Amino acid sequence: MLKVAFQEPVQELILQVEECMLAQAEGAHPQLASALDHLLSSGGKRIRVAFTLLIGEMLGGNRQMLVTLAAALELLHTATLVHDDLIDGSLIRRGNPTLNAKWSSTATVLTGDFLFARAAKLAAEVKLIPVMQLFAETLAVIVNGEITQLFGRRVFAGREEYERRIYAKTASLFEAAATTAGIVSGVPPDIVDKVKHIGFEVGMSFQIVDDILDFTGQQTTNGKPVANDLRQGIVTLPTLYYLEEFPEDPVCKAIAQGKIVSQDDLERLIQAIRTCGAVERSLQEANEYLERSRVVLMEFPISPARHGLEELARFVGQRSK
Amino acid sequence: MLKVAFQEPVQELILQVEECMLAQAEGAHPQLASALDHLLSSGGKRIRVAFTLLIGEMLGGNRQMLVTLAAALELLHTATLVHDDLIDGSLIRRGNPTLNAKWSSTATVLTGDFLFARAAKLAAEVKLIPVMQLFAETLAVIVNGEITQLFGRRVFAGREEYERRIYAKTASLFEAAATTAGIVSGVPPDIVDKVKHIGFEVGMSFQIVDDILDFTGQQTTNGKPVANDLRQGIVTLPTLYYLEEFPEDPVCKAIAQGKIVSQDDLERLIQAIRTCGAVERSLQEANEYLERSRVVLMEFPISPARHGLEELARFVGQRSK
Repeated sequence: MLKVAFQEPVQELILQVEECMLAQAEGAHPQLASALDHLLSSGGKRIRVAFTLLIGEMLGGNRQMLVTLAAALELLHTATLVHDDLIDGSLIRRGNPTLNAKWSSTATVLTGDFLFARAAKLAAEVKLIPVMQLFAETLAVIVNGEITQLFGRRVFAGREEYERRIYAKTASLFEAAATTAGIVSGVPPDIVDKVKHIGFEVGMSFQIVDDILDFTGQQTTNGKPVANDLRQGIVTLPTLYYLEEFPEDPVCKAIAQGKIVSQDDLERLIQAIRTCGAVERSLQEANEYLERSRVVLMEFPISPARHGLEELARFVGQRSK
Repeated sequence: MLKVAFQEPVQELILQVEECMLAQAEGAHPQLASALDHLLSSGGKRIRVAFTLLIGEMLGGNRQMLVTLAAALELLHTATLVHDDLIDGSLIRRGNPTLNAKWSSTATVLTGDFLFARAAKLAAEVKLIPVMQLFAETLAVIVNGEITQLFGRRVFAGREEYERRIYAKTASLFEAAATTAGIVSGVPPDIVDKVKHIGFEVGMSFQIVDDILDFTGQQTTNGKPVANDLRQGIVTLPTLYYLEEFPEDPVCKAIAQGKIVSQDDLERLIQAIRTCGAVERSLQEANEYLERSRVVLMEFPISPARHGLEELARFVGQRSK
């Protein structure tokens, strides 16, 4: 696991979360166990795990319960990724082959289902009904968002639609992570609301940066062509900014209206979006979300965990793949 | 909905369960809502719903909670069916086109996931941690069973393996339905154990009868060719009985050892299994399971719900598609 500053205050706990996740394969069919092993050891920065733990640690929550909760949330996230990779046929994630690339789609569907089951089991171990409810609700939001995106391709998506989409896709889980960490820590409802707010802002900015990376990243590192979203008819923030700047661009209008354009026109448009300042303005917007999360964060007393959350926000604003 | 005798004591409640299930589509993307509508209104006899309600009713449980629980279990069952149909490429179920036949596999995966989310939400509404835990555990058992079957095709499966498989596939959910209905009804643990036992026996016999129908059914009614399981290398009870009778049959041995046989040999074997008495012996075994469930059932006082459960057991033994 690549160490980054935000992980420091909860490094030990992150290892416990990883152990807990790996233990979920016990008793499963060997093929399933090896798939889980592949999935769970492929690493990444465990930003959702660290975020959950840091929020709970800042609130003085029970560490064992926070570890279980963080493992449940990460398994839920992993399950949605597994089905997601199947859906868009991704063969590589974080530089590693996806399950989808190595397995039949059948086995991939079932592996995702098994992860859902284990996530639900761990969430139930926390023994708090509101945690279970929020868990189920968040899964419904994520899946409904994916369905909306699936049927909404090549249909014009304005800013409001975009915000709804990134909330469903990413921010809802960050928000649920913070909220459930607050509930598990037994703090009063107004404090739960505050950390929920932090989760929302961090999650929104995280997805905006992801959408920026889709334009600025290299195919070799993330396994997808540059501007993969736009190629699939999905309009994200940089394209929305470009459209504000050049509302009459016929190619961009055509895409936004759900029409198919020529490959040459598409490549020219992508180049134009990359160089017109839309990326910078999107990054600026991501930072505004982060700034709002920092304002709420500053209401909490200084602690290593709070410092870790500040580092995490900094990381989200500056990360590059 | 086709009315059958076992539904009578809980007819009103079954309608409430169906309403509750349909209400889960509210707020979802219209395409998802219409898929759920298609799935949930395609009927069937709602045997799991009736079984859950009858057990709870027999134990004097709170009806509103039982309705919620039964809806949660049926949605979980429906979700696994949706992914299952995708996996074996079924185009017809109960004479209706499957979601898989009408939709992209992507939308089908997501619809199943949404049903999982809604099932979990309803299970959480019952507000009993052991119910949530058993729910998650049962989903894991079902999925692990499917994975085992997937990787176990064309590998010899003896009787023990067969029993494990039908437990995972079907009996585990009946058992969980009875157990959670008992928990929801607030009866003492020894009573919960008794109804759990009933769930196990009824569930095992239900799947055995299903496996018999695979040999005796007609392609036109269930949308699959006769002996579809055997054609896919899956050995079920009639084949196990045939093998006991004719352990030296080279074709059957070959299949049981995972070898591919000629189409002619396969058809001859299917015909032999259908006519050698293996079907009758399998039915006899299914009835032994049912008889054991009746013995436990008779320990409960006479009531319309108990009578409904007797009718349900009779139905399982006699049903034909």
